[in-house]
Amino acid sequence: MKIRKAIITAAAPSQHALPLQRIVDQDGQEKTALQLIVEEVVSAGVEEICVVVQPNDQAEFRRAAGDNAGILSFAEQPKPLGYADAIYRGKEFVGTEPFLHLVGDHLYVSGKTARCAEQLIAVASENGCSVSAVQPTRERNLKFFGAIGGQRIDNRPDLYEIATVLEKPTPTQAEQELLIAGLRSGFYQCFFGMHVFSDSVMSTLGSVLESSSETSKKTLSDALALLASREKYLAFEVNGSRYNIGEKYGVFMAQAALALQGADRDQILTSLVELLASKANAFPRIQSEG
Amino acid sequence: MKIRKAIITAAAPSQHALPLQRIVDQDGQEKTALQLIVEEVVSAGVEEICVVVQPNDQAEFRRAAGDNAGILSFAEQPKPLGYADAIYRGKEFVGTEPFLHLVGDHLYVSGKTARCAEQLIAVASENGCSVSAVQPTRERNLKFFGAIGGQRIDNRPDLYEIATVLEKPTPTQAEQELLIAGLRSGFYQCFFGMHVFSDSVMSTLGSVLESSSETSKKTLSDALALLASREKYLAFEVNGSRYNIGEKYGVFMAQAALALQGADRDQILTSLVELLASKANAFPRIQSEG
Repeated sequence: MKIRKAIITAAAPSQHALPLQRIVDQDGQEKTALQLIVEEVVSAGVEEICVVVQPNDQAEFRRAAGDNAGILSFAEQPKPLGYADAIYRGKEFVGTEPFLHLVGDHLYVSGKTARCAEQLIAVASENGCSVSAVQPTRERNLKFFGAIGGQRIDNRPDLYEIATVLEKPTPTQAEQELLIAGLRSGFYQCFFGMHVFSDSVMSTLGSVLESSSETSKKTLSDALALLASREKYLAFEVNGSRYNIGEKYGVFMAQAALALQGADRDQILTSLVELLASKANAFPRIQSEG
Repeated sequence: MKIRKAIITAAAPSQHALPLQRIVDQDGQEKTALQLIVEEVVSAGVEEICVVVQPNDQAEFRRAAGDNAGILSFAEQPKPLGYADAIYRGKEFVGTEPFLHLVGDHLYVSGKTARCAEQLIAVASENGCSVSAVQPTRERNLKFFGAIGGQRIDNRPDLYEIATVLEKPTPTQAEQELLIAGLRSGFYQCFFGMHVFSDSVMSTLGSVLESSSETSKKTLSDALALLASREKYLAFEVNGSRYNIGEKYGVFMAQAALALQGADRDQILTSLVELLASKANAFPRIQSEG
């Protein structure tokens, strides 16, 4: 399975300016968040990218894409109908091909030389099926993510055959349906914001969205639960970390992680320590006892 | 002297996206850099703000200004003719009034309750003349700033009568013309990016710009040197720090400074320590001797 195309979703109204945020990468080059996400995708061998945006954001995003702007096309999400609908806006772009999908509000820091998207695509190519990147996640954070249940594959500690997908499960639901043998107690495998989808996913997504309503809004997890019941679908525990730049201090923590693992590590460590020292009198003093 | 108006310059081509960068303020509210700069100005009592921008940036900047967008107007700098020219684009806006001027690529963290702009305006109102905020700056950083020379005013350790202004002086020039008695050795008073200008500054700036040429480009410092020779002009050492968000890691360090002095200090300290611990194996080990 060769993955030539990718969809990046960046259409949430609250995230209009996120792809424009400027961040210094591990090589010390200042880029926009969109450039970093696009580079993650391109480094995995992808040749064409569709960015799903709100109406009127195309020009600004193209400007923010830097050197890779030439391989970008855009699809608009006219109404803010959510994440599953945003991916579905890329239907014409992907046609009948499998594709990589990344959310536009996460940055990834790999724990090894191959970047996270490259690791994921290698697994998908090897297995010829849909693969979602996952990460062990504390029970208290289940409310933020889609989570999977399934069986670990023999001799592959980082690979699971997915049986169930639940969107933002309660701890009780998770305990009943998503327990994975061998995973640390109190942890579940939650989506990492990065997937490879087979050529059947768009039609699955389409049928699920058709049954969606105001009172029962269908999510990507609903479509993926259906996918798991129909065809081989794996979860891959990526060697790396994700940073949600859409949350408070998200860009800051992503920048700290990149800098502390990159070319400017010493400079940033020194600057942070100097800053802490200069703010020392702003901190409450430790009371001595007695 | 009542200061009702302010000019913020944000027209440098390299800084197009700077005012759109998102930063959490000391109260824990996520805002754009433009919002933070505008709030600095508004908190000092300013009622009308003119932002000098590149052509076509108005809509995006107005969107980034948040609740205070209503008091903003814009002036365009059609060609990138530099900083002095950018300020002069606000000539019609200020008319015959004195005004506050802030650069659009700095954020300020005050060392006391009154914000930096408020401290500056208080000094200007009291003295009824132009006042530039300054900060003691190491000799090796003179190449980045305008610097002043002059006499400390009796009984005011934070106030100077300006005699000379030089743009990015060499250490030799600075030693000959800008030494200030009482300042720590190797330090000079450099501009902080924040000024109150009397109603005569625009015409001074205009005459200096008229004499500018390709081979001898005139700067704001040239105009301010002329101002110092014509009227009372003070420098005020603000109690606070400035963060140049236009430089590499500038937004990151500004965010660190705001967070470590704000409502979310404990959370950010904890997150940074956790991150450092998780990256411990990415650091070179300290070699034990023997």
